[in-house]
Amino acid sequence: MALKLYGFPMSSPTACVMTCLAEKEVKYEIVNVDLSKGEHKFPSYLAKNPFGQIPVLEDGSVTLFESRAITRYIAHKYKSGTDLSKNGNIEASAMVGVWLEVESKQFNPVMNAIIFEQLIKPVFYHQTPDQSIIDENLAKLVPVLDVYDTRLSYSKYLACDSFTLADLHHLPYIYYFMKTPWADMITTRANVRAWWEDISARPSFVKVAQLIENQA
Amino acid sequence: MALKLYGFPMSSPTACVMTCLAEKEVKYEIVNVDLSKGEHKFPSYLAKNPFGQIPVLEDGSVTLFESRAITRYIAHKYKSGTDLSKNGNIEASAMVGVWLEVESKQFNPVMNAIIFEQLIKPVFYHQTPDQSIIDENLAKLVPVLDVYDTRLSYSKYLACDSFTLADLHHLPYIYYFMKTPWADMITTRANVRAWWEDISARPSFVKVAQLIENQA
Repeated sequence: MALKLYGFPMSSPTACVMTCLAEKEVKYEIVNVDLSKGEHKFPSYLAKNPFGQIPVLEDGSVTLFESRAITRYIAHKYKSGTDLSKNGNIEASAMVGVWLEVESKQFNPVMNAIIFEQLIKPVFYHQTPDQSIIDENLAKLVPVLDVYDTRLSYSKYLACDSFTLADLHHLPYIYYFMKTPWADMITTRANVRAWWEDISARPSFVKVAQLIENQA
Repeated sequence: MALKLYGFPMSSPTACVMTCLAEKEVKYEIVNVDLSKGEHKFPSYLAKNPFGQIPVLEDGSVTLFESRAITRYIAHKYKSGTDLSKNGNIEASAMVGVWLEVESKQFNPVMNAIIFEQLIKPVFYHQTPDQSIIDENLAKLVPVLDVYDTRLSYSKYLACDSFTLADLHHLPYIYYFMKTPWADMITTRANVRAWWEDISARPSFVKVAQLIENQA
């Protein structure tokens, strides 16, 4: 039985899981969750994720939520495709863990706030972006990207010299950020730019990005 | 050579790592980082963690930061003591991952905001707590604790029927929350209360709590 992924490609956490499944060459079926109809708050969905958020992954009898937990599971379970979690090597796996936490704690809240204000609020809520929130988060993004630029000056990818979950979880967020007026924060940092050009050209993400474009 | 943990017991992320090391029966030396002297921004410290935050763990040639990445590493590497990550069982390990992400994403930001306003701001910054921030986060905490109460009605611990990292990472935060006027949010939920009484009585955390009291 194929895996079932509940969500939709325009959702960044769903797009992370889709990219992970493509990297691992695992077949799955996507089950669209229509947020505008409140399907994520239906009892049948809350039984899968009591927090009522997407995505959810069903793999046989296993039901999982929280995108980073899902991608770690896929990377741990499926041996095919790219070795995304380095689970067989304690030290390398620890570095994937460190940079996955950096994405989650240092990068993601800041990036999410900018993308929400600039791209989501005007389109889906017909509201004007709050420039003070954007400015506050752009200011927080500067030192994070500076650390990334230094890190990527001596390590080809964030965790080690090969592409892992730590890189993967940045993909949809930077993809959207590149559509904002502040894309030069990526392109003016040579190592961050080279890393972004490299990871965003991976066939796994190119395919997901096409699905996002088709849905937009 | 003993492990070196940079931080101090009153810091919740440091306390998580200390509890983890105690559960795994791993010896370590604590190296105090004096935030009031800005030691976390010294170049020698930034070389260990470019984000200038505590804790950092040094284990021989391995240097790690971000508390959840550190505890996952310890749980993965050291076979002694409690099996905190279930790394040998893909499904159980996935559930630890899910509930560790729930702690990180649903519980922690809300709890941190309340603890910062109520306990840290008046003592360390001589400022009055912002009640609107507290109220907003208490409102967000209600549905999270409701999900926990339901979950703990059929699972003894958050991830499975034994104590794991998912439970452990809640310990210092609830410990501080119990000192606020809203402790009844824990004690009026029967399953959350029983879980809290159980996990906070573990010798690993009792010892860490004593170190926190001594430092306060």
